[in-house]
Amino acid sequence: MKWCRLRRNGKAVYGYVDGVVVRCVDGDPFGSYRTTQVTVPTEDADLLAPCDPRMIYAAGGPNYHSHAAWASDYFGRDIKVPARPEIGYRAVTAVIGNEAPIILPADTTGQLHFEGELAGVVGQTGRHLSREEALSCVLGYTICNDITERGWQASDQTTWRSKNADTFKPVGPWITTPEEFDIASAHTEVRINGEMAIRFRTGELIHDLADHLVEISRYCTLHPGDIVLLGTDGPTTPSLRPGDVVEVEVSGLGVLRNPVVSERAQPGVLRHLTS
Amino acid sequence: MKWCRLRRNGKAVYGYVDGVVVRCVDGDPFGSYRTTQVTVPTEDADLLAPCDPRMIYAAGGPNYHSHAAWASDYFGRDIKVPARPEIGYRAVTAVIGNEAPIILPADTTGQLHFEGELAGVVGQTGRHLSREEALSCVLGYTICNDITERGWQASDQTTWRSKNADTFKPVGPWITTPEEFDIASAHTEVRINGEMAIRFRTGELIHDLADHLVEISRYCTLHPGDIVLLGTDGPTTPSLRPGDVVEVEVSGLGVLRNPVVSERAQPGVLRHLTS
Repeated sequence: MKWCRLRRNGKAVYGYVDGVVVRCVDGDPFGSYRTTQVTVPTEDADLLAPCDPRMIYAAGGPNYHSHAAWASDYFGRDIKVPARPEIGYRAVTAVIGNEAPIILPADTTGQLHFEGELAGVVGQTGRHLSREEALSCVLGYTICNDITERGWQASDQTTWRSKNADTFKPVGPWITTPEEFDIASAHTEVRINGEMAIRFRTGELIHDLADHLVEISRYCTLHPGDIVLLGTDGPTTPSLRPGDVVEVEVSGLGVLRNPVVSERAQPGVLRHLTS
Repeated sequence: MKWCRLRRNGKAVYGYVDGVVVRCVDGDPFGSYRTTQVTVPTEDADLLAPCDPRMIYAAGGPNYHSHAAWASDYFGRDIKVPARPEIGYRAVTAVIGNEAPIILPADTTGQLHFEGELAGVVGQTGRHLSREEALSCVLGYTICNDITERGWQASDQTTWRSKNADTFKPVGPWITTPEEFDIASAHTEVRINGEMAIRFRTGELIHDLADHLVEISRYCTLHPGDIVLLGTDGPTTPSLRPGDVVEVEVSGLGVLRNPVVSERAQPGVLRHLTS
């Protein structure tokens, strides 16, 4: 089953992909829902990020061996794979959906990198989970492009703006339930303007989703809709530039596609807002 | 005006403190509200954290000089005050209100430290704010005890569990609007079991609330209810132990009081939950 969230008449509604249409539901996949008579052609659906997380957790260190090697070389210091999952946070305010623009801040260093990642979505509240309980609390899998401003990542004491500026967390296009996803045979591929930038075996991650959920839930309560980003592999170059279109595909999970625009070129987008 | 949030008939409602009573409102201080006829004696009010933040930002490095000196000594490395505000995140899932217990995880290193902090609460949506706009988007000030497990802070690559385990972010008791708070004359005092552990001038912070809001809003949209923690001063010892009661008082903002309990002593509190 492929769960999505779409904008309809100015409101966010959940639906599921049924071939060429999205069937809208009353309710959501985390609680109860009822399929309505409303369908939208999948290609016309105005997709939002497929859930509205309360928390976004991320592998807090490299979670693939060749990314650790690349990052050590890039930053000029030894960056180790953590022995157990170390957790980072990402800002829920940075989340955008499929096809929404990634906005390059005006004062960027120019080093805007993609990170194509498998992500897990929590379906139930959980605390102190065993590995089996952890897997049973998963709603499904989706894709995240963990956009990173490497210049700021190198200069700042935290990853706040380097990974969490508005629009830096594209997620989608939908959430695929576990029985439809085979991580062992999956590849993650990132394309810039249709050209392959990196391709790696998704399943070669060091700490898997269950490892992360067990570790997080030892200290923190997991909530429905929480997202866990599972890291990327290899280099994350070339840098993205305004005008580029970046796609992340994970076999079986669809394609997450976002254009890159410059804040300078769109001064009206980000003006001071008051509610 | 002192805004609070309280539990009434199993639901969270906003109210404001009017002498010895809390007057409950329909609505909230971020949008529109109407004062109801319902009042609760202030001392009987079941206070929750005074808002339900979407994001909690924090001074990402020391924000008072003598805390930087103490932390450098404690961790055995030079910890500098950042030249401009560097931002950290705290987990919204860790927030508790006044009088709620801080639960010491079973595998603690024993180094559970208080950090008595002034916190600002955002009242309006904002992006790319000037200093004047930043101050006009503040709903008010409250108190946070930025509970930190120093052993984990030293050993981990991120501050995820050291600062964000469930119950590690007491906030409250209420939000005081700016015209009622004079930072220049205020002191922050932390007491353990009634005995003073530290007292410092609240206004000696290096980067103030407006500095933080300007910097955050350069990259991230601020939302009503977001909280910004402004750092602590001096040492944060002795470690808290089960059975202790810790209080943080900031002149004019009230007293935030929380007992400390052990997860070991309360195995039922944190069992596996399913929604």
